[in-house]
Amino acid sequence: MVSGNPTQISSLSASASASGFKMSTLAGKDDCLAWAARDPSGVLSPYNFSRRAVGSDDVSLKITHCGICYADLIWTRNFHGDSKYPVVPGHEIAGIVKEVGSNVHRFKVGDHVGVGTYVNSCRSCEYCNDGQEVHCVKGSVYTFNAVDADGSITKGGYSSYIVAHERYCFMIPENYPLASAAPLLCAGITVYTPMVHHKMNQPGKSLGVIGLGGLGHMAVKFGKAFGLNVTIFSTSVSKKEEALSLLGANRFVVSSDQEQMKALAKSFDFIIDTASGDHPFDPYMSLLKTAGVLVLVGFPSEVKFSPGSLNIGNKTISGSVTGGTKVTQEMIDFCAAHKIYPNIEVIPIQYANEALERLIKKDVKYRFVIDIENSLK
Amino acid sequence: MVSGNPTQISSLSASASASGFKMSTLAGKDDCLAWAARDPSGVLSPYNFSRRAVGSDDVSLKITHCGICYADLIWTRNFHGDSKYPVVPGHEIAGIVKEVGSNVHRFKVGDHVGVGTYVNSCRSCEYCNDGQEVHCVKGSVYTFNAVDADGSITKGGYSSYIVAHERYCFMIPENYPLASAAPLLCAGITVYTPMVHHKMNQPGKSLGVIGLGGLGHMAVKFGKAFGLNVTIFSTSVSKKEEALSLLGANRFVVSSDQEQMKALAKSFDFIIDTASGDHPFDPYMSLLKTAGVLVLVGFPSEVKFSPGSLNIGNKTISGSVTGGTKVTQEMIDFCAAHKIYPNIEVIPIQYANEALERLIKKDVKYRFVIDIENSLK
Repeated sequence: MVSGNPTQISSLSASASASGFKMSTLAGKDDCLAWAARDPSGVLSPYNFSRRAVGSDDVSLKITHCGICYADLIWTRNFHGDSKYPVVPGHEIAGIVKEVGSNVHRFKVGDHVGVGTYVNSCRSCEYCNDGQEVHCVKGSVYTFNAVDADGSITKGGYSSYIVAHERYCFMIPENYPLASAAPLLCAGITVYTPMVHHKMNQPGKSLGVIGLGGLGHMAVKFGKAFGLNVTIFSTSVSKKEEALSLLGANRFVVSSDQEQMKALAKSFDFIIDTASGDHPFDPYMSLLKTAGVLVLVGFPSEVKFSPGSLNIGNKTISGSVTGGTKVTQEMIDFCAAHKIYPNIEVIPIQYANEALERLIKKDVKYRFVIDIENSLK
Repeated sequence: MVSGNPTQISSLSASASASGFKMSTLAGKDDCLAWAARDPSGVLSPYNFSRRAVGSDDVSLKITHCGICYADLIWTRNFHGDSKYPVVPGHEIAGIVKEVGSNVHRFKVGDHVGVGTYVNSCRSCEYCNDGQEVHCVKGSVYTFNAVDADGSITKGGYSSYIVAHERYCFMIPENYPLASAAPLLCAGITVYTPMVHHKMNQPGKSLGVIGLGGLGHMAVKFGKAFGLNVTIFSTSVSKKEEALSLLGANRFVVSSDQEQMKALAKSFDFIIDTASGDHPFDPYMSLLKTAGVLVLVGFPSEVKFSPGSLNIGNKTISGSVTGGTKVTQEMIDFCAAHKIYPNIEVIPIQYANEALERLIKKDVKYRFVIDIENSLK
């Protein structure tokens, strides 16, 4: 862990790098370059720290890309009041294996590998045993801003490399671009998991997607790959043209258009709600067929509806967060097999602060991905 | 339909009955004796009217018993603003077949038969075809206060007989008391349907039951019959002793006891929420295991919770109303086979107004059943 003035240290590392010395020589083990937030302003700036030594079950990954997720804002800006500064965000990590521990058999140096939203769990409870580590009874350890088993605070993917137990690493097929792979590790798996769990992969069924951001646009792509009839609900008509032509949605509805909403009553088998902002639920519940399912993956300030919206027609609201290791690998393989790629805007790390501001304004189509390899030096 | 002053008519029928004349002779077809509410005061008083002639697919049922459901209050007192007076309430109907139409094959005169919450549907949509008539695309016709296919307003079981298409009649086994059968037709099926649908019939799993009224006490009985570990959540400690000894619940928790609630975190596979009053949902959601299901069958004024309560742990809230004809007959047969009987307080029709007042005060263990046969004369 770094102590002392972070600004001084980052200056030091910059000059150390410039003078050609290895960080490990100059600054002990502080050889991991990163960008971190130091306080609730959330402003990111260069920061160096040490990762643990590669253990026998560990994979050390040279990070090439890291997606920008709303979670990065939550913890760099202390929205939940539990930020542990300095915060190195990022949990959509893709890279290349540079070292493996003696017990690692699934990966070898040079493999393309991803790391998602968690990097540890008890590995012995019923959920871990079932490949659902995200539901670990003792709690999965998030990839950043969490207390790991050894007491250290985890640090995420806005950094040059990461060391993780192989169990929490995913193989990215060689032919799948690493930049595209990054957003799969959170945005992708967050929508894929409930879609598969709730059997939204039955061709011909109808799917509504609320919100067209990083998660929503992946839900559209998965929906189309599953053979569903996909309708996008958005607050902004400006996204219509692209949603239909580029993403291939069957229909685009501006959710404030009550006439259009009314015409779609009882017509959806499934709705996946990716909107992060507050919105009413009753209008969407009314769009579900009998026994229809609305899956919530966003975090509005509250969920509120009339009981009749749920009871009449035996409807269901289910929540979901990311996914276990089993379904995550399945999702990556599915994307590679079906040539499903997130629509991304690749940026240098130096643009991260501006990108986070644009994320707040929903000014992104549809996911920022930081080119760590070429910009974090 | 009766026109004119109902009090006069009921006096007329009382005197007609006393003088030994058949109603049909004296009052045309107004031979169905009943108690009805005339206005939003909801006060019930004697009332005579006519039922339709027995059609070829119809069963005419001499009503022996009718359960008192909260729905009776809703429409006799115009809580929803759509009451069509005079309102003859009652949709937990049990009785004996007195006449059948020429096409009726499932029932014969003398059979014990029940009629539940609906008496008609389109009989041609996908839901009707699947025995889920309650979800009929054109809407099922409720047993009282609804507009039937012929334009008449349906009238319920606080009456001497009823005529219904055989499809909406259920066979009550000879050895099953008619008084006990009545509450199965709404209270019983309302909890049985979601319990079976959500697979709450797996022995060894844990079930929480919120609210211990007509529905809740049936959920406890079904839960025990399914081999579940059943915990009752109630606002009133006064029900504890009986809940454990008489109903056989495994545990009784006063929901305001935060210590006890906290100790049960993440320990329930299922919760069935039968409470009619408003209550917070987050505390109950926190009791569910990962992928746990809370089924709502009550109608509080709203459902409100934090998205984290749903998303973290992939939890589900589902709604449900009564059940189709297929599952209703299955439920009755299940009760007969497993000797499951509602706990009832049998009352004469003359006590109905007081019973409804007591229902508001939750002063009933656990269902009132009107002895129509012996008191409505």
